[in-house]
Amino acid sequence: MKVLVINCGSSSLKYQLIDMTTEKPSAQGLVERIGLEGSILTQKSNGEKYIIEEPMPDHKKAIELVLGALVDKEHGVISSMSEISAVGHRVVHGGEAYADSVLIDENVMKALDDFIKLAPLHNPPNIIGINACKELMPNTPMVAVFDTAFHQTLPKHAYMYSLPYELYTDYGIRKYGFHGTSHKYVSSVAAEMLGKDLKDLRIITCHLGNGASLAAIKNGKCIDTTMGFTPLGGLAMGTRCGNVDPAIVTFLLKECKYSVEDLDTLMNKKSGVYGISGVSSDFRDIEAAAKEGNERAQLALDMFKYRVIQYTGSYTAIMGGVDAIVFTAGLGENGIEIREQLGNSFGFVGAKVDPEKNNVRGEARIISTDDSKVKLMVIPTNEELMIARDTKAIVEK
Amino acid sequence: MKVLVINCGSSSLKYQLIDMTTEKPSAQGLVERIGLEGSILTQKSNGEKYIIEEPMPDHKKAIELVLGALVDKEHGVISSMSEISAVGHRVVHGGEAYADSVLIDENVMKALDDFIKLAPLHNPPNIIGINACKELMPNTPMVAVFDTAFHQTLPKHAYMYSLPYELYTDYGIRKYGFHGTSHKYVSSVAAEMLGKDLKDLRIITCHLGNGASLAAIKNGKCIDTTMGFTPLGGLAMGTRCGNVDPAIVTFLLKECKYSVEDLDTLMNKKSGVYGISGVSSDFRDIEAAAKEGNERAQLALDMFKYRVIQYTGSYTAIMGGVDAIVFTAGLGENGIEIREQLGNSFGFVGAKVDPEKNNVRGEARIISTDDSKVKLMVIPTNEELMIARDTKAIVEK
Repeated sequence: MKVLVINCGSSSLKYQLIDMTTEKPSAQGLVERIGLEGSILTQKSNGEKYIIEEPMPDHKKAIELVLGALVDKEHGVISSMSEISAVGHRVVHGGEAYADSVLIDENVMKALDDFIKLAPLHNPPNIIGINACKELMPNTPMVAVFDTAFHQTLPKHAYMYSLPYELYTDYGIRKYGFHGTSHKYVSSVAAEMLGKDLKDLRIITCHLGNGASLAAIKNGKCIDTTMGFTPLGGLAMGTRCGNVDPAIVTFLLKECKYSVEDLDTLMNKKSGVYGISGVSSDFRDIEAAAKEGNERAQLALDMFKYRVIQYTGSYTAIMGGVDAIVFTAGLGENGIEIREQLGNSFGFVGAKVDPEKNNVRGEARIISTDDSKVKLMVIPTNEELMIARDTKAIVEK
Repeated sequence: MKVLVINCGSSSLKYQLIDMTTEKPSAQGLVERIGLEGSILTQKSNGEKYIIEEPMPDHKKAIELVLGALVDKEHGVISSMSEISAVGHRVVHGGEAYADSVLIDENVMKALDDFIKLAPLHNPPNIIGINACKELMPNTPMVAVFDTAFHQTLPKHAYMYSLPYELYTDYGIRKYGFHGTSHKYVSSVAAEMLGKDLKDLRIITCHLGNGASLAAIKNGKCIDTTMGFTPLGGLAMGTRCGNVDPAIVTFLLKECKYSVEDLDTLMNKKSGVYGISGVSSDFRDIEAAAKEGNERAQLALDMFKYRVIQYTGSYTAIMGGVDAIVFTAGLGENGIEIREQLGNSFGFVGAKVDPEKNNVRGEARIISTDDSKVKLMVIPTNEELMIARDTKAIVEK
């Protein structure tokens, strides 16, 4: 079975065609500048690149070209579209309705429309992508895989904010959490690697990329996560501030005469390690600057690590201990130094990094010493594969 | 030596005259409705109450009556004002300038004026109280004791928010922390009770009242605390929401058409356990409602405890372990059930409540079992005594 995985942004589209026998992508591609001048499609398959540059006024045209590239006689990987058994769509927000992936029908499309108010930037392009695919492949089953679904097992005392209860009932203001597909994937791989059942484990998964979040997964269920009502919540990130004293927001509006729009931009695009360092949102640049003696770059790193340690500590507390801590995503998979510092900060519950094992980038591996009570692990995330697995499971049902 | 301790609010004033030989108050009183109809002074001394009802148009008049009550032939406790060796003033905000209490002079008064922008509700009445005292007792030394001072030892990675660095340099936006006098007091008593030097201890102090905050005190220095730029930050409290995903604030402004003032009121006065339970901001009422089956009251309690456990876990992590956890203030001193639940949630670092020892209200006591690795303690706070001690130490220098 071959599954096409689609992740649609407002002017971009990522895709992979995954062969479920091997669970490897036979082709993967990126479309950029949809609806803009200079639209471009780049596909990689069989070790070579195939580039299409032609006008793509909308997502339908872009997907038409994606399908064309996949069946292209010279550069393609399948002989006809009928080889695509199903399409798995990444959808950011599934609200409270979806605790799992779902076969897309009219009711699902209505629900996705409803969730636009919760994810005004993300759900609309996801919906556009689904509609374009449905027009072009009307008989192929489509599955929606939500970033929020894995976190729907949070208990109420974890997902509620201590705001007036009516804000929850009237506007749906609660913690939803994001990156769910990644947390779900790496926690399941962690259990496999440890040769244990997820139901017997307490795992903290650290998805540390430009967006960053942690999840506490107890006995296979996510019981808390750092992102909140929006992906701005929780940890500080590349350019996002994470949780703060909310009086700062009203102070900036009242005393510093910021507009609401300015503040949204400030908190989402100008904060985080970028805002503190003034250098970059990329941890590699910040680490380089810190090594050259840039104090604000060093501060940005220290603050980032400090917050990860704090949340890891709080998740250890709510699970009554921890069996494994998993690092994933850009920084988690490649940040050797930061993993060593984070891992060893949990010495008080018996965690200990093995520096030699930790000397690894982008490879699944246990990086703690043999006698470490808490297993420290690197597991490269693979959201596309998780989407493809969910899609396969649902269309086979 | 006798020290007068003054805590001035916008229309109220609390005071104690403390005899430093015994460290006990010889008189304590409360003035209410200053500047309003029906001003009233209530003083307790020698086991009896003395009430003065007469117009008090301003704080100067109120303090005049306080001094009169203290030297009153029938109800007073001193024969002349000259017996008051010094006055200690509680001041909420000392900004970054004061890491300790300070003898009040003109420079200090100028600094307090500067801090009004950081504490617009609290510092102005504190300043008014100091000025009124100075007029009435021009030759008595006065000391300012700040709620923020104890937290000035926070390292930069703990007090900075991951917002653009300029918000710190231009507007002083950082974590200041509050309740410092209480955290300082109970941590010093804890060390005494344990027969150890503060410098050898890692203590988490839980000030759980209608306002609530935690502090992590490592080797005698506060290294983190939950309240932030304002007393709204950190834990959920009686009516305050604590830290949230800040995108909720902008969402409410944009999508729900709240005004900034509405939001300040909502987050400060209508949130916390009150906002969730819909019952009360008083934990006794909420516990009673929960026992009668009120689900939202139970949720409010669960959420409150959950946040305390999370912060305690994060402070355990940043200190690399914890030697003692101290409960203080209204709920901390009297909440037997909540202490048992919180204390036992730290079983994973070896904490264990002794139910018999824990069956206590408002009394300093170790409440963990003899073999508990982490000492759990109840210590009634006494901010007035701490203010008096600091005042004595400074005027004797």
